[in-house]
Amino acid sequence: MSKTLKVALIGYRFMGKAHSNAWRQAPRFFDLKADVELHTICGRNPEAVEAARSELGWSHASTDWKAVINSPEIDIVDVCTPNDSHAEISIEAAKAGKHVLCEKPLGMDPAQCQEMLDAAQKASVVHMVCHNYRRIPAIAQAKKMIEDGTLGDLYHYRARYAQDWIVDPEFPLVWRLQKGVSGSGAHGDINAHIIDLGRYLMGEFEEVSSFMNTFIKQRPLEDSAGKGSGLGGASTGERQMGEVTVDDAVTTIGRFANGAMANLEATRFALGRKNHITLEINGSKGSLYFDFEDMNRLKYFNNEDPDDRKGFRDIIVTEGGAHPYAGSWWPPGHILGYEHTFVNTFADFVNAVMDGTPGQPTFEDGLRNQRVLEAIEQSSESRNWVKI
Amino acid sequence: MSKTLKVALIGYRFMGKAHSNAWRQAPRFFDLKADVELHTICGRNPEAVEAARSELGWSHASTDWKAVINSPEIDIVDVCTPNDSHAEISIEAAKAGKHVLCEKPLGMDPAQCQEMLDAAQKASVVHMVCHNYRRIPAIAQAKKMIEDGTLGDLYHYRARYAQDWIVDPEFPLVWRLQKGVSGSGAHGDINAHIIDLGRYLMGEFEEVSSFMNTFIKQRPLEDSAGKGSGLGGASTGERQMGEVTVDDAVTTIGRFANGAMANLEATRFALGRKNHITLEINGSKGSLYFDFEDMNRLKYFNNEDPDDRKGFRDIIVTEGGAHPYAGSWWPPGHILGYEHTFVNTFADFVNAVMDGTPGQPTFEDGLRNQRVLEAIEQSSESRNWVKI
Amino acid sequence: MSKTLKVALIGYRFMGKAHSNAWRQAPRFFDLKADVELHTICGRNPEAVEAARSELGWSHASTDWKAVINSPEIDIVDVCTPNDSHAEISIEAAKAGKHVLCEKPLGMDPAQCQEMLDAAQKASVVHMVCHNYRRIPAIAQAKKMIEDGTLGDLYHYRARYAQDWIVDPEFPLVWRLQKGVSGSGAHGDINAHIIDLGRYLMGEFEEVSSFMNTFIKQRPLEDSAGKGSGLGGASTGERQMGEVTVDDAVTTIGRFANGAMANLEATRFALGRKNHITLEINGSKGSLYFDFEDMNRLKYFNNEDPDDRKGFRDIIVTEGGAHPYAGSWWPPGHILGYEHTFVNTFADFVNAVMDGTPGQPTFEDGLRNQRVLEAIEQSSESRNWVKI
Amino acid sequence: MSKTLKVALIGYRFMGKAHSNAWRQAPRFFDLKADVELHTICGRNPEAVEAARSELGWSHASTDWKAVINSPEIDIVDVCTPNDSHAEISIEAAKAGKHVLCEKPLGMDPAQCQEMLDAAQKASVVHMVCHNYRRIPAIAQAKKMIEDGTLGDLYHYRARYAQDWIVDPEFPLVWRLQKGVSGSGAHGDINAHIIDLGRYLMGEFEEVSSFMNTFIKQRPLEDSAGKGSGLGGASTGERQMGEVTVDDAVTTIGRFANGAMANLEATRFALGRKNHITLEINGSKGSLYFDFEDMNRLKYFNNEDPDDRKGFRDIIVTEGGAHPYAGSWWPPGHILGYEHTFVNTFADFVNAVMDGTPGQPTFEDGLRNQRVLEAIEQSSESRNWVKI
Repeated sequence: MSKTLKVALIGYRFMGKAHSNAWRQAPRFFDLKADVELHTICGRNPEAVEAARSELGWSHASTDWKAVINSPEIDIVDVCTPNDSHAEISIEAAKAGKHVLCEKPLGMDPAQCQEMLDAAQKASVVHMVCHNYRRIPAIAQAKKMIEDGTLGDLYHYRARYAQDWIVDPEFPLVWRLQKGVSGSGAHGDINAHIIDLGRYLMGEFEEVSSFMNTFIKQRPLEDSAGKGSGLGGASTGERQMGEVTVDDAVTTIGRFANGAMANLEATRFALGRKNHITLEINGSKGSLYFDFEDMNRLKYFNNEDPDDRKGFRDIIVTEGGAHPYAGSWWPPGHILGYEHTFVNTFADFVNAVMDGTPGQPTFEDGLRNQRVLEAIEQSSESRNWVKI
Repeated sequence: MSKTLKVALIGYRFMGKAHSNAWRQAPRFFDLKADVELHTICGRNPEAVEAARSELGWSHASTDWKAVINSPEIDIVDVCTPNDSHAEISIEAAKAGKHVLCEKPLGMDPAQCQEMLDAAQKASVVHMVCHNYRRIPAIAQAKKMIEDGTLGDLYHYRARYAQDWIVDPEFPLVWRLQKGVSGSGAHGDINAHIIDLGRYLMGEFEEVSSFMNTFIKQRPLEDSAGKGSGLGGASTGERQMGEVTVDDAVTTIGRFANGAMANLEATRFALGRKNHITLEINGSKGSLYFDFEDMNRLKYFNNEDPDDRKGFRDIIVTEGGAHPYAGSWWPPGHILGYEHTFVNTFADFVNAVMDGTPGQPTFEDGLRNQRVLEAIEQSSESRNWVKI
Repeated sequence: MSKTLKVALIGYRFMGKAHSNAWRQAPRFFDLKADVELHTICGRNPEAVEAARSELGWSHASTDWKAVINSPEIDIVDVCTPNDSHAEISIEAAKAGKHVLCEKPLGMDPAQCQEMLDAAQKASVVHMVCHNYRRIPAIAQAKKMIEDGTLGDLYHYRARYAQDWIVDPEFPLVWRLQKGVSGSGAHGDINAHIIDLGRYLMGEFEEVSSFMNTFIKQRPLEDSAGKGSGLGGASTGERQMGEVTVDDAVTTIGRFANGAMANLEATRFALGRKNHITLEINGSKGSLYFDFEDMNRLKYFNNEDPDDRKGFRDIIVTEGGAHPYAGSWWPPGHILGYEHTFVNTFADFVNAVMDGTPGQPTFEDGLRNQRVLEAIEQSSESRNWVKI
Repeated sequence: MSKTLKVALIGYRFMGKAHSNAWRQAPRFFDLKADVELHTICGRNPEAVEAARSELGWSHASTDWKAVINSPEIDIVDVCTPNDSHAEISIEAAKAGKHVLCEKPLGMDPAQCQEMLDAAQKASVVHMVCHNYRRIPAIAQAKKMIEDGTLGDLYHYRARYAQDWIVDPEFPLVWRLQKGVSGSGAHGDINAHIIDLGRYLMGEFEEVSSFMNTFIKQRPLEDSAGKGSGLGGASTGERQMGEVTVDDAVTTIGRFANGAMANLEATRFALGRKNHITLEINGSKGSLYFDFEDMNRLKYFNNEDPDDRKGFRDIIVTEGGAHPYAGSWWPPGHILGYEHTFVNTFADFVNAVMDGTPGQPTFEDGLRNQRVLEAIEQSSESRNWVKI
């Protein structure tokens, strides 16, 4: 491993922690085609970015993202900023000839995604959108089983992403609940994941009918300064309230190009469901079931088992010689967690960069995902079926 | 228990077995307000009905349902015939002053259901549609918890009824797959159950968007006589094929009058799912989850539990002093099965008859269910949202 | 089915309810070699036995068990009395040429069991001890899989029977907690079941080391009359306390004749465990796991599955053509409950009577079980390993 | 965090990977009282230790453990060597005034452990034996609930550690199956863990009765060189066989000082069980259940819940403000894996070093564990109960 790829991380919030960890761990656990250096972390606030540098283990800190991106030192740009700057930074990085790994969602709308894809293709850089859940070992195993025909023809994709962190009506009007800043609510944040997994496992969506809903329509502003925030705050006694302008939940039915039926639900209003991604796929030869809160397991029903001993198998996806990614980690039954999905992803990205091959999901996947997201929003507004 | 109610069972197929068992068992396990006599079983084929009489334990057999219904011997008419004769028989029974328990679906369409309801109300008889799943103890417990405010405001009803008995494309074109005979496929057969449970637990549906789909569009006719069956049979080599004219699966999104969101799916194409009814209800104070293949359990998340010990409780609904119906059966942890849902239902019906009070679900529930079923079909055809 | 077997039930408490139900239901669900008549129920208290007759559905009631047993009307004697009269009644029944089904435990000690076996063999009657859990469909399926070599050589039998009904120290000193009346506590009551299942599935026990324990050594007497009950009652303030003279829990390690290791635990002190029988069997080719509170399922690990798709299968044991007893009941996924284990057992007993063949578990099994029970008690007292 | 603790890792096999990861990650996720430097890794083979240094991320490599330990550069010695050198290295490290973290088992026998404890105490260094499973968040939560009285009086500790990696009789006679090298089989390797957890959660063991067993008594030698290995190899045709001199499985019953009953089982012969540690603890107020293959969950039964809503709660132990260690990692429902148990442990050790307070489990725990291990072996040999 003579080559060392130097990474610049732009942004350092929640995803910054997960990404830094993945860059640090990937070369320790995978036999990569290049080594990785956590070179520069970049943000707007000098004190905050220096604190992040120290905590997350980067060599340098900077507040000038353009300079960083254009530095000849840097090989890879990892974009972790708020969604509305993904495009600008990624395009600049591509133009500078840097390989780009961009957090999801790729852009704010399909047009922006298209620009990003065009820039990356024009520059011939390796580009990937960070849908880390594709590298959950159980999901990679599911993909393998679908591709090799184990499930036969596909009939159903039933997916749900459920959380519960804003059920309390006193939970304040944070930026994630303001459309101007976040674009959408549960939809772009978590529905996006089960859409990408649907495309990955089932193929392209063809049309959707959807219903986006907001249960709690007003919430307290985060602080009294909220008064002048332009959020339509109204005084309720002493407390300032503002309008929630994004969806709390979104539910969708649809059809895939291969004729399979889709049923999706994303919600932040399911008490007890913390990070609950459940998928069920039914085919002509078998079925799969997955629950992210039990992410080391994949349930598999094989209709070709003998009649008296058919049943969903509870596969613990940790066998080194048999299951995706398992060989780089621990012995069988020694489970992995959330963060490993990033490490697996970044390991594949490093190798893709060295091979000069596209690292799925590419920016084209990001674009296609965005089209599905947009179709769902349009369907909910127009109350019609919308084709993708 | 001086009074004995004499029952006539019209029809004796699959449901005849379950109903006969329930009439036989209810007085043995419940302290009913009247005793029950399995008086007459009625069907068209004399040999078959006599065999059923003997096997199922009825005193008399008859092929003349009108005579049976109008006999002064009979107190209760239990209608288990194919769907298209429910209305005629139930109305005749009501006119004869007999209490009527009718299998679901109540009628073929809302108009028919309305006639049935009118007849029963005019005759002042006790009427019930046999949605036996309302008397699953875990469902009755869920109802109690929703009614007493345990869940708070309701946000989500997510229900699925999945089976797998026609995944094989060689499975023949039985009557249940022919619209002229059965009305619909998975929709009327199993979607009907999760619609009724939705209305029972959540309140009335307000509007729906739905997608009914047929995966296998042609199937072998049941026998060569199928040629002249008018089913559009076409010869494929030697085998005769016919059109499947009902849905294999139906998926629905919708809204309840109380603002909660609905997500329904019924399918006969989910390998490994045998009689898999799963429900999740999320409210502002807690959540419930139920799986019919594990019907003695109810999962309950209480958001008021201390922060470090919150989690879905796995309630085994078998405590005599605490859980609905449990006191009539066995000690804690000694589980019940499918057939007990009928026994519980019939016990309540007997007491309703003696009290002269309506036994929910009444024919009005049957009518309202039918309206939802119809709206879903209309939505699927028109590809629009349809109000109930 | 021209022949009708007439049954006399001696005793009518908890087991009387379960047994009456099984006699009533067996001919309705199974295609038996003879019909069954619930002829006479017999007990000591005239009013109580008449009430039981009416409630449980028997034709006659009697207080004279000897007369009943010797009546030429009776074909089968079902012994449900307290344990200390099993021997006398069963022997009398055998002498009268009646087929005998006796509740477990067969007798009070091995000597008594031997006498019962001798009497039954001498009279050439069909004899069975009612270990109904052998006819749980999942257990019958497990037996089939062990017998056909599916598991290979057997290494481990790990079984637990856990309940929680006497955890409260205020729970009174009922007869089941008095050795003079009940013989033992958790040991004879529930350990007996997992011993019988162990012998059924694994073969004979060879030696055991055991520890029987009583956590709550004194309990309140059932009423103030307890003072003179000879139970060693001592006054604690106003309340009368008595010594608990049986085990609350018993835990055992041991070895089977085939070299497999045994680990057993029976307890009434496991809060949250209601009727929790769990078994795990590990062999050289696979493993099985069973939980009675989920009795319609059998978990099966097949080591011959491909490496990337091995996992415990969750078999729902309800497939008519494939699983034991399932064909007599309901469609796949329509689950059975506790009471069905008795119905399955009694159906097999009726056919055994008609065939004149032994109906396992015979009185010889009852005797062998008793020897294991005795060895465990001796081991706990002597603090030594004891051979069976 | 001005202070930096410099670590030397002695040994670098399987545990070396897990330990290196923990030293690397602890300061990234925890707000420690000192920073950590992965200073020197030490082993016998120069090439292998250099490769390990590079792969695992240490600054220096050495083959001279004494020099490393006595270097003034080093603050902490982490002992990961084979069991038979734990004592020598740990004692030398203590004498050199270094804080010592030693892999389990602490020593080869109680006498050796006592020497290690004496040396550490005499040197006033911080000492810890690496029973990392104590810092599984669910176990730490269980400890908290037991200590605060949530479970009340304790009645049962039922623990099992099951694996399946040597079921195949063709699996060779590796060093772990040779008593001279490994000391024991499943007993010291995995039984040791559930013994330590038992002492941690329940208190001290008082006496045990145990049965250690070897199912496969001969295995193929690892290679033909095995012929002269002194392992009693015998030629079977061409293949060389040797005696297995350790236990494949060990099962134990016992009693704790507080009167609770113990039931332990450790086996390498349970097909389908990969790293299956299951614990159940029953007390007078509630019960806990844990399964390491589902390590982010703790099941809790609270007997004080209302009668109709009691049930085992499925607590996902990932709530930052509520559950042990969770706040240092990811949001709720984003699960942790095997390696995090080490990181949590090492973070606590670093803080213990800085505070100069004992870091449980100390070498005294290691000693006490060893006494229980020895008692179990003695009991199995003597076939008697043995007091600890």
